[in-house]
Amino acid sequence: VIITLTTDFGERDGFVGAMKGVISRLCPAAQIVDVSHHVPRHDIAHGAWVLATACREFPVGTIHVAVVDPGVGGERLEVVVAAGGHTFVGPDNGLFQHVAAWGVEGTWAITSTAFRFPEAAPTFHGRDVFAPTAAALAGGLPPEAAGPATCLAGTLPWLGGGAPTGHLGRAGHVVHIDHFGNAITDLAPTRGLRAVRCAGAEVALRRSYRDVAIGAPLAYIGSAGTVELALREGDAAAHWRLARGAVVEAVLADER
Amino acid sequence: VIITLTTDFGERDGFVGAMKGVISRLCPAAQIVDVSHHVPRHDIAHGAWVLATACREFPVGTIHVAVVDPGVGGERLEVVVAAGGHTFVGPDNGLFQHVAAWGVEGTWAITSTAFRFPEAAPTFHGRDVFAPTAAALAGGLPPEAAGPATCLAGTLPWLGGGAPTGHLGRAGHVVHIDHFGNAITDLAPTRGLRAVRCAGAEVALRRSYRDVAIGAPLAYIGSAGTVELALREGDAAAHWRLARGAVVEAVLADER
Amino acid sequence: VIITLTTDFGERDGFVGAMKGVISRLCPAAQIVDVSHHVPRHDIAHGAWVLATACREFPVGTIHVAVVDPGVGGERLEVVVAAGGHTFVGPDNGLFQHVAAWGVEGTWAITSTAFRFPEAAPTFHGRDVFAPTAAALAGGLPPEAAGPATCLAGTLPWLGGGAPTGHLGRAGHVVHIDHFGNAITDLAPTRGLRAVRCAGAEVALRRSYRDVAIGAPLAYIGSAGTVELALREGDAAAHWRLARGAVVEAVLADER
Repeated sequence: VIITLTTDFGERDGFVGAMKGVISRLCPAAQIVDVSHHVPRHDIAHGAWVLATACREFPVGTIHVAVVDPGVGGERLEVVVAAGGHTFVGPDNGLFQHVAAWGVEGTWAITSTAFRFPEAAPTFHGRDVFAPTAAALAGGLPPEAAGPATCLAGTLPWLGGGAPTGHLGRAGHVVHIDHFGNAITDLAPTRGLRAVRCAGAEVALRRSYRDVAIGAPLAYIGSAGTVELALREGDAAAHWRLARGAVVEAVLADER
Repeated sequence: VIITLTTDFGERDGFVGAMKGVISRLCPAAQIVDVSHHVPRHDIAHGAWVLATACREFPVGTIHVAVVDPGVGGERLEVVVAAGGHTFVGPDNGLFQHVAAWGVEGTWAITSTAFRFPEAAPTFHGRDVFAPTAAALAGGLPPEAAGPATCLAGTLPWLGGGAPTGHLGRAGHVVHIDHFGNAITDLAPTRGLRAVRCAGAEVALRRSYRDVAIGAPLAYIGSAGTVELALREGDAAAHWRLARGAVVEAVLADER
Repeated sequence: VIITLTTDFGERDGFVGAMKGVISRLCPAAQIVDVSHHVPRHDIAHGAWVLATACREFPVGTIHVAVVDPGVGGERLEVVVAAGGHTFVGPDNGLFQHVAAWGVEGTWAITSTAFRFPEAAPTFHGRDVFAPTAAALAGGLPPEAAGPATCLAGTLPWLGGGAPTGHLGRAGHVVHIDHFGNAITDLAPTRGLRAVRCAGAEVALRRSYRDVAIGAPLAYIGSAGTVELALREGDAAAHWRLARGAVVEAVLADER
C-alpha cells in the first residue's frame, strides 16, 4: 500500500522524518511517497490544491496523509476521509475541500487507540495521530474502526472574501500560484473562449507557451483542466501582482 | 533494511542522488528514506538535533546516514556508531552527540575497503565512504568489520559559549529553531512550571497554540518532550531574536 | 526497476506528486527515487549537470526521468535516450548532452500511445508523456517501441558565449555552481597542475578544504574528477562573482 505525505513542515527539521519513522515502524510494508513538504506555512488552501492535483493520479486505494494544521491541538477534528476511491488522513480544516468534490464516501473522527498514540503531543499530530492512522489503515484496519462517523466541517476561507464582479459563469478566481508564478484559475474552458481579463489586462488564449515570445503573457488550458495565466519563462503572479482569490473573467469570441 | 539520509547538501545538485545511486547499486534491497537534506550548510548542531528527533521513531535496526561535514578530508574520523538499537554512519564531529545519549553500544572507524571506495574523493565522503558503508551494513556486514573500535570524540561546540545565568536545574538553552520559528529548549518539564523567561520576557505555559490568540506568545511542552516557545501562527525566533544557545529559565508556580 | 526523477518543479506544488502517482498507477513495481526537484527554473544546463553527476552512480538499467523543459508544447521532441547502460526520458533540449558523452546507444521519439497519454496537456509533459514512458519502460516495453529512431538535436547554449582566452588545453569553464557555492570546472587534472587562474586571481591546488584556513580559497580535484574552486566553509561563487561559463585557466608547475 502506498502512503503519500503532504505537509507544510519544510525539510530542515526532523518532523517529516519522524512521521516516516512511525509509519515504517508500525507498517513496514507501506511504501512512503513524498508529495510535498513545502506547502507554505499554515496555508490550508495551498495544501488543498496540492492534494487535489497530485493525489488523483495515484492508484485507487492509496492513503494520503496531509498535515497543514495551524489549529493543531484545538477543536478541529482529526479525520479519515474516503473520497473517490482514495483515503485521506489529516485535520478537518478545509484541507479536503477540493478532494471532497470527487465524492465523499465516508468521514470518521480518529479516536481509537489503534489509530493514535495515547499520549499524543498536542502540537505534533502528524507524528502521533496521522502517521499511526495511516499505518493502521495500510495494515488493513477499516476506516470506520478509527472512530465515530462524522461530516467534513472545515472549509477554505479564502473564497469568501469577495464575490466575482463578472457575469454569472463567466467569472472565476485564481485558486493557486505555482512554483513558476503561473496563476491557475477555476475558470472552466467554455466554447468561444478567446481571452481572460485579469488585473485590468486582457490576455489572449493560446495552446502553450511556445505560441508567444519569451516574456509575453498568455492564457491557456492548464494541466488541471482549467484556465491558467502565465508569462512565457516569466512570473505571471509577480507581473500582475496576482494572489489567490484574484478575480478573473472569461472573454468570449463574440465580444470586443 | 531501511537506510535514512540526513545531509546539508540541499537538493539543487546531484550529491543526494549520487549517494542514493551508490546505495541502490551496492544493496538493491535497501529501502532509502529521506529525512532531511536541508540542514543549514555546515551546521552540525542542527543536524544532530534532526537526527535525535527523527531517527528514534524508526524501527530498531535502521541505518541512519548523516553528512554535515565541514571537516571532510580532514582529521575527524569516519565512523559507524551503534546506539539505542540503531546504527549511525557519518563523520565524528559532534553530529552524533544527541543520539549518543541513547546509549552507545559501539563506535568503529571506517577503514575497510569493504566499506569505502579505495579512491574516495577527499571532498565527497557521502558518496565514497558513508553510502558504501550503509550499503555494506544493510547487506549484512557487522559494524565491527568496518574498522578498528574507537570512541566518539566529536562534540557540539555551541553550548560552550556561555553558562546559564539562572538557578541550577532551572535554566536551559534554546537547542533548535524549527521551520515555524518555534524555539525548542532543553528545559525538561518540572512540577509547578508555570512560565519561561527568555529575552527579558516571561511567557506563560499553555497546552497548545489554540490556548492563545493568533500572534500571541506561549510556552508549551513540545513534541521532543521539552519546553518550546512559540507565537501562535507567528515566528518566535524572529520576534525575540532567539538563536540556538540563548538562555531560558523556568519560572515555578510559587514565584512571582 | 528504479525510476529516478530530476526536475525544476520545486516541491510546493502537486507536479512531482502527480508524476509519482502516474508511475505508481501504471507500474506499481517501480521504485521511485528523487534525485532533484530544485534545478533552477528553466535552467537546462544545471539539470544536465545534475543528471551527469548523480545518474552514473545508479545500477545499469536504471530509468532516469528528467524534466527541465521551458519549451514544453513546442517543437523539441520528447525522447528516450539509451546511454552508458542507462535509459533517459525527457525533452530533447540539451538536458542529455553530458550523459550522451557516456555513449549514446539509441534515441527514440516518444509517439506511441503505449508511452504517452492521448490527450497530453501541452504544458505538463512530465505527467502525461515522461511519467507514462518511464512506467512503460519499467514494465518491460523496449525503448524502440516508444516511436521512431531519431538523433539528439538539443545542445546546451551556454558554452557558445565566449571562447576560452587561454592556451589550448589549458583553459576551461565553470560548468556548475553547487549548493555550497563551489565552482566546478571542466578542467581535467593534468600533470604539473599547481594552481588555477580565475577572475584575476591565482588559486593554489590543494587536496581538500582542511589544507587551508577557514574562509581561504583553494582549488582541488573535485568529486566529478575535474578541478573545483572553493572557499573553505565559504561561498566561492559569491566571492569571485563566478557564474557558469566563466573562463578558468590551468597554471602548471614550471610557470611563474
